[in-house]
Amino acid sequence: MDASISLTLPEIQAAARTLEGRTLRTPVAPLHGIEAQREFGLDTKVYLKLELFQLTGTFKARAALLNALQLSPDARERGVTAISAGNHAIAVAFAAKETGTSAKVVMIASANPLRIELCRAYGAQVELAEDAHQGFARVAELARVEGRALIHPFEGRTTALGTATLGLELCEQLPALDAAIVPIGGGGLCAGVASAIKLVNPACQVFGVEPYGADSMYRSFEAGEPRSIERVATIADSLGAPYALPISFELCRRNVDALVRVSDDELRVAMRFLLRNAKIAVEPAGAAATAALLGPLRERLRGKAVALVVCGSNIDAASFAKLIAE
Amino acid sequence: MDASISLTLPEIQAAARTLEGRTLRTPVAPLHGIEAQREFGLDTKVYLKLELFQLTGTFKARAALLNALQLSPDARERGVTAISAGNHAIAVAFAAKETGTSAKVVMIASANPLRIELCRAYGAQVELAEDAHQGFARVAELARVEGRALIHPFEGRTTALGTATLGLELCEQLPALDAAIVPIGGGGLCAGVASAIKLVNPACQVFGVEPYGADSMYRSFEAGEPRSIERVATIADSLGAPYALPISFELCRRNVDALVRVSDDELRVAMRFLLRNAKIAVEPAGAAATAALLGPLRERLRGKAVALVVCGSNIDAASFAKLIAE
Repeated sequence: MDASISLTLPEIQAAARTLEGRTLRTPVAPLHGIEAQREFGLDTKVYLKLELFQLTGTFKARAALLNALQLSPDARERGVTAISAGNHAIAVAFAAKETGTSAKVVMIASANPLRIELCRAYGAQVELAEDAHQGFARVAELARVEGRALIHPFEGRTTALGTATLGLELCEQLPALDAAIVPIGGGGLCAGVASAIKLVNPACQVFGVEPYGADSMYRSFEAGEPRSIERVATIADSLGAPYALPISFELCRRNVDALVRVSDDELRVAMRFLLRNAKIAVEPAGAAATAALLGPLRERLRGKAVALVVCGSNIDAASFAKLIAE
Repeated sequence: MDASISLTLPEIQAAARTLEGRTLRTPVAPLHGIEAQREFGLDTKVYLKLELFQLTGTFKARAALLNALQLSPDARERGVTAISAGNHAIAVAFAAKETGTSAKVVMIASANPLRIELCRAYGAQVELAEDAHQGFARVAELARVEGRALIHPFEGRTTALGTATLGLELCEQLPALDAAIVPIGGGGLCAGVASAIKLVNPACQVFGVEPYGADSMYRSFEAGEPRSIERVATIADSLGAPYALPISFELCRRNVDALVRVSDDELRVAMRFLLRNAKIAVEPAGAAATAALLGPLRERLRGKAVALVVCGSNIDAASFAKLIAE
């Protein structure tokens, strides 16, 4: 794959200017307190990038809006479509509302009820598909028949530029960072964040984290090319992409230092850890970076300044209560 | 009561300088999203003062540390003591550790287990009392026999100066605020916050909120003097002070525009609302200001710029899950 795929700093800065005032600059908070000190040691500095406070509840708002803003007036008239387990659909509904276009999104019927409700509240038409296979077929049909622009959940240079604005923000907020840990579903978030970090602060290591039950990027790294997995099985539904795709794969391959994986149990432990210590209520995907630091990256990052990207959370109280039950 | 009880702006600014670098300047986040817009109307601007991100997990760190820093070397040698349902004890344990003194705290045996654990983790000796009556007797004994300085959970000018630093911060972060809603247990938080707000931004209204089952300040306002209540019955254990005391009562009386009360059910609804919309996991006390805006203050504050003080949260996952169950 050629070099032109790489993002440049001026492009990322331009994307950030485009989104300024339309999305939020989310806060960074130090993870403090006795339990965190005990877990990570006094010499480790841990920061949370609180992207769950982003408009729509997740980082997805950045890329969805950047994509929607690039539509031609004609395309805007025909509207947008997307397929998603939830958070990307919410972001596309939000982006459509912000740019004055219409959204018809296809969601998997098992999606968290809060997410379906939020999509509708932003004014999107929601169609429910029985499974991902049926959903992909339907969204392709919507694009073909209604001429709607398909906004991909994780692939594309514009998508990576959108998520890169989060990485740029993080580098501005924490200029002396040694490492960042970024959750990976399809890899769109990590592609952008890792690209931005390596451009601004090349000494900062970037780690991607996937659930064992949805480790398509891990397997793609091993194979040296984008791969699919047979079956997705994880409580982190927002990280459940069944395959990697070329652009996000390539940007991750070039900019990520290592990938690690975490189990559902580790995700649950991290959710409870964040509840007790950071006072935040996150869906499993939002706890993945924390699970990585509590687990596979603990020793490797001891004594470092580490940012955990809390990529988002949209979850209802009943589902959350069930997930944190011991 | 004479005028000299009132806090002055230079005193509050001095307290803020003393605490700078020793406690955190906690972030303010806009409450956004479709559900919030639907509840409060598009023209109402709601901000969360996220004091639950404070060191020790609650605002109590500010006053406890300010009190501890004022001890003479002699007093510091003898140590400090406190009685608390939990959060004040944690703050005193933290303050003792920070100032190099020893803490022996008395906690009510029904305190949330996480809070007892946190006190011990900060190095305090913890004694458990069967009830508040026994606890007050024991802490008086510790002060008398061991010469320990008693740091009161809510009364005193120094305590009010500590909490006033939160109010000052809020005014700096949101200069155009129309109203602030502040939870009241004993009233120490509200005494300081309301004093600071009325000094810096006198046009800003200040509302106090209490649970119906612990409405000692409400009854004291009605009586025109500090009153006790017979029995405390609320899920907001951190707001369960059984009486008001002169200084905090008087500072609240002078600076608070109105008091409102909320039920346990309203607190639970507000906890779930904050989970879904603000992605934070708060103990009931931390949801009190939100409950007030969702309930008794909703119409009165429509169209205003309103700050909700999320005063803190220390709660374990199991207790939280139980409280948010529908």
